[in-house]
Amino acid sequence: MNSFGRIFRISIFGESHGECAGITIDGCPAGLSLAAEDLLPDLERRKGGIQKGTTPRQEEDYPIFMSGVFNGKTTGFPVTILFENKNIRSEDYNKQRSIPRPGHADWVASQKFGGNEDYRGGGHFSARLTTGIVAAGVIAKKLMKDVSIQADVTEIGGEKDLEKGLQKAIDARDSVGGIVECRVKGLPVGLGEPYFDSLESVLSHFLFAIPAVKGVEFGSGFAAARMFGSLHNDAIENKEGKTRTNHAGGIVGGISNGNELVFRLAVKPTSSTPKEQNSLNWDTGKTENFSIKGRHDLCVALRAPVIVEAVTAIVIADFMLLEQKIKRVL
Amino acid sequence: MNSFGRIFRISIFGESHGECAGITIDGCPAGLSLAAEDLLPDLERRKGGIQKGTTPRQEEDYPIFMSGVFNGKTTGFPVTILFENKNIRSEDYNKQRSIPRPGHADWVASQKFGGNEDYRGGGHFSARLTTGIVAAGVIAKKLMKDVSIQADVTEIGGEKDLEKGLQKAIDARDSVGGIVECRVKGLPVGLGEPYFDSLESVLSHFLFAIPAVKGVEFGSGFAAARMFGSLHNDAIENKEGKTRTNHAGGIVGGISNGNELVFRLAVKPTSSTPKEQNSLNWDTGKTENFSIKGRHDLCVALRAPVIVEAVTAIVIADFMLLEQKIKRVL
Amino acid sequence: MNSFGRIFRISIFGESHGECAGITIDGCPAGLSLAAEDLLPDLERRKGGIQKGTTPRQEEDYPIFMSGVFNGKTTGFPVTILFENKNIRSEDYNKQRSIPRPGHADWVASQKFGGNEDYRGGGHFSARLTTGIVAAGVIAKKLMKDVSIQADVTEIGGEKDLEKGLQKAIDARDSVGGIVECRVKGLPVGLGEPYFDSLESVLSHFLFAIPAVKGVEFGSGFAAARMFGSLHNDAIENKEGKTRTNHAGGIVGGISNGNELVFRLAVKPTSSTPKEQNSLNWDTGKTENFSIKGRHDLCVALRAPVIVEAVTAIVIADFMLLEQKIKRVL
Amino acid sequence: MNSFGRIFRISIFGESHGECAGITIDGCPAGLSLAAEDLLPDLERRKGGIQKGTTPRQEEDYPIFMSGVFNGKTTGFPVTILFENKNIRSEDYNKQRSIPRPGHADWVASQKFGGNEDYRGGGHFSARLTTGIVAAGVIAKKLMKDVSIQADVTEIGGEKDLEKGLQKAIDARDSVGGIVECRVKGLPVGLGEPYFDSLESVLSHFLFAIPAVKGVEFGSGFAAARMFGSLHNDAIENKEGKTRTNHAGGIVGGISNGNELVFRLAVKPTSSTPKEQNSLNWDTGKTENFSIKGRHDLCVALRAPVIVEAVTAIVIADFMLLEQKIKRVL
Repeated sequence: MNSFGRIFRISIFGESHGECAGITIDGCPAGLSLAAEDLLPDLERRKGGIQKGTTPRQEEDYPIFMSGVFNGKTTGFPVTILFENKNIRSEDYNKQRSIPRPGHADWVASQKFGGNEDYRGGGHFSARLTTGIVAAGVIAKKLMKDVSIQADVTEIGGEKDLEKGLQKAIDARDSVGGIVECRVKGLPVGLGEPYFDSLESVLSHFLFAIPAVKGVEFGSGFAAARMFGSLHNDAIENKEGKTRTNHAGGIVGGISNGNELVFRLAVKPTSSTPKEQNSLNWDTGKTENFSIKGRHDLCVALRAPVIVEAVTAIVIADFMLLEQKIKRVL
Repeated sequence: MNSFGRIFRISIFGESHGECAGITIDGCPAGLSLAAEDLLPDLERRKGGIQKGTTPRQEEDYPIFMSGVFNGKTTGFPVTILFENKNIRSEDYNKQRSIPRPGHADWVASQKFGGNEDYRGGGHFSARLTTGIVAAGVIAKKLMKDVSIQADVTEIGGEKDLEKGLQKAIDARDSVGGIVECRVKGLPVGLGEPYFDSLESVLSHFLFAIPAVKGVEFGSGFAAARMFGSLHNDAIENKEGKTRTNHAGGIVGGISNGNELVFRLAVKPTSSTPKEQNSLNWDTGKTENFSIKGRHDLCVALRAPVIVEAVTAIVIADFMLLEQKIKRVL
Repeated sequence: MNSFGRIFRISIFGESHGECAGITIDGCPAGLSLAAEDLLPDLERRKGGIQKGTTPRQEEDYPIFMSGVFNGKTTGFPVTILFENKNIRSEDYNKQRSIPRPGHADWVASQKFGGNEDYRGGGHFSARLTTGIVAAGVIAKKLMKDVSIQADVTEIGGEKDLEKGLQKAIDARDSVGGIVECRVKGLPVGLGEPYFDSLESVLSHFLFAIPAVKGVEFGSGFAAARMFGSLHNDAIENKEGKTRTNHAGGIVGGISNGNELVFRLAVKPTSSTPKEQNSLNWDTGKTENFSIKGRHDLCVALRAPVIVEAVTAIVIADFMLLEQKIKRVL
Repeated sequence: MNSFGRIFRISIFGESHGECAGITIDGCPAGLSLAAEDLLPDLERRKGGIQKGTTPRQEEDYPIFMSGVFNGKTTGFPVTILFENKNIRSEDYNKQRSIPRPGHADWVASQKFGGNEDYRGGGHFSARLTTGIVAAGVIAKKLMKDVSIQADVTEIGGEKDLEKGLQKAIDARDSVGGIVECRVKGLPVGLGEPYFDSLESVLSHFLFAIPAVKGVEFGSGFAAARMFGSLHNDAIENKEGKTRTNHAGGIVGGISNGNELVFRLAVKPTSSTPKEQNSLNWDTGKTENFSIKGRHDLCVALRAPVIVEAVTAIVIADFMLLEQKIKRVL
């Protein structure tokens, strides 16, 4: 299933080197003003080639609205947005075909889809698909006036000084991972439920859908496992539910408690490292040394914040529609 | 939504101090031999009062089959299992009602459900509901002959020596958290998809539904964020996809790669600590000191492994049905 | 999938001659006052043995609340209701086992479930399962103050005089079918969508789930196929959308238009006719004459109205929650 | 929700006079050979302007694959297909805007979506959206080698002689409705379940999603309501489940029984009749006489068979995937 969400429901399609990456957003309330320009700032943040450490491939990333917008407003019907693929050098990838790239999905995809998968640039696995998610994220953000979402890289290659972490990668001619932290202010009390619809469950579901994410923690997260209960418990201070500390990260019993929502993600180092590797050659059946060609990010975590914000906004908008805190027609 | 799964689909209901905790398992293949006795060993593992550090409340936890089993086999129709609540001392909880317990859902539940929630013993939020999940987990395990799942507590209160960690809690008259690790052997290649149906996404969704879980990581997880890509990448060694290392924890591109599936969870310290706390009194509108009454676990992580195994088995069984690796009639 | 609905979501379980028939209602708003007594009148209407032409089997049909109700009100968590099976004579059915009963699911069930199905009294196929649906229907009706739903049998055995139709069956010692019509007043404008979420689509989905229903039509239905467009079109008379005629049955473009919702169902004659039949004997592989034993309705359509009302109420409540016309907490 | 299906899952988007009509097919098995040419014959059948009685508007209706196909085969990822809108005369529709057209969704859409809907040519309500459904239907048909589906118009304007029925409409300068019958041969035993996943339920859900459908009946349908049980019951003749008669239309207990699947639909007369009508003018608040402009079908039922076949194929393919009768990789 390439769909996610219950009322505000997104479906992604497309490939890295096919015609396009695309997204359909179903269940978006009618009457939201929406133009391509609204999406550009966040799409720009997602784009590579700007920051040191990100790939020089630069798609134009201009969103083309195919449906669901009329006279500058959403109609209440599915909004489909396409991002055409223009700047493609597939030959870079074809060369690698005989060696399934470690850390990439080449080998599993081939096994699962019987060799029918579009392997060029990762095909449907590619982070290119996150353009649509970022677009949907902007729409979700526009639905929520009082909620502010901010994600940041807080660590690269083990360094809190990001410049230093990146330089470490450049010096080592290797890729590095990073930590992204997201904070949400202004969340209403009451989003989520215990068990399967817990805010943690639904958020983590989508967060782990972001390529390269290998860990998610809320509030104190893994550190909580090392605390005493009396320390970890967030004492409630007033009738509005303000807590003295926020070790829970704003979620108790799966439900937002009105305090700041805080969570962190572990982003693994880019699988396409410039460093020489040794792995299986499909044709020979033996391992061999090789180097990854193509244009890649040294640290994909650098591109992650805007995607994490989008994911968060989409999940929150969906819960707010369910809880009738966003209207169906604006 | 108190339901989870796509083909093998579970729905939970019940409360801690109501009539029962229960579960309905829809989509279970017909023809699986199933008796209450099959469920008892794992239910026993989940039960409190056995290990040092777990609550002395002991429900009989005997599963009553209400539907879906005939002549000792599943029929292909919904299997509903009840666990009656017998050993209840609600008065313990009523005393606490004026003070929403920190770390518990008392305050958010009251806000969200307008005071209509069954607050006794946590009501529907209670870990009592995990009895049904453990039962469904046994059924899922029985569907998979070649897959073995094992979860263990690897750390309590920051100590890898579990006895020591627990003693720390006892000495401090406080509760502690812990780390649970799960390893799955024999998983077929090809479960999961990139993006929303990634194995990490679906697993984490359910793992975060377990009460008290605040962090989930796959393979190297958060440590991956501090590695170089050349180190983190798992080189493929042979045509069966065996990798030299397993930093990915058995999942690449959201898909199982045939290597061991490995993940860890952070379990927060039990919110019901024996220690005196200071928090809001609803009636007075002011904070005050108080102590939690009732019977509680010093470390809920101790009970988590069998639940984590159940969750894992349920998710895997569902994926295997989708991928036609388990038949619809056995 | 034995579940239906998007926000107000029901799941059924149980068998005719097992422990119980049951239902779980998830997504029911919190704060609805609810007692077993509320359900009794509609359950009474569903029950056999009262009207001429319905089976003398009389379960007590008393609803047992297992979860989701506290202090006389719904909590916002799943409401599970059981109907215990008490008045069972399975031996009646065992005798028939070697001959799959024509019109019944005996043959297909055996093929599909490999002989594991509970065949006693139809097992999970039995109309006994509609007790839960009727119970959920009462809850749905209670959620909607201004909507009134009424279903009636308008024809039995081809006769509009129902007494006459039934007598026809009694005289012929045979079962007969019937037509049920349902009318809903007070429906708000705007429920449903074009295409898959059309009000007709969702209603018909559930209506065809009622055992024995073989046809559904809205408004003029099949008669519309024989009309001219100028006659069929319902002219709009005022800004409230009141139409001069109501050939559309209150739904245009899949959406309720505020006029009366009108639809009809064709209910096939009871498969368990008292008349001698000729069909396959599984053991001999040859056809033979036989008679159905057991207690059965001459005309199941007589029991259908209250079920049709329940189905309609459930569908409407779900759409009203989606359209935020019913609150999540009352 | 503009999505339908459980494993083979389609999502539609687009508008009559916007950029395109489109569809995304998720869950299509990998390895199916697929080219635009495969789709053309059925798309041609759907197209207007060929038969007497259908609209002269002729879109090129050429399918553009945007994703999910690589090297002439499906990849296992979402297949998105666009149909660009080229031949548009929106001014025809703008003229009518002050009078919500009777039988059309103009009035309800405006109420539901607050005037934000794209009203041109019916917008998202338009039968233009069925191009995508027909395309998905072809794909579904290609997945099933042994199943043959054929739908035909069996009645127009009350006449079984179709030429005569159409002439009736032309003579009256009015539109007419019709009956479509669909027959499916080669269906495996065991598709569907009792209650919500009954074959009738799922088929009718989708059939009523087709614009203008107001009635659906299976087998003898409404006529069954007038039969005796002994007549209606289909006696089983042999161990393969062949029945002597087929009043059930191939479905018993919600499950296909291996006999021919037979059902009929009532299609209402085209709402856009050439005849003068009298209805509300939004601007004046009073009713007035007016005539519909634009190019329209005299009898939309004529275009329905290929759509009905597509719907049927999609539903069957989905059930066959669920029942593991179609593989996930071909």
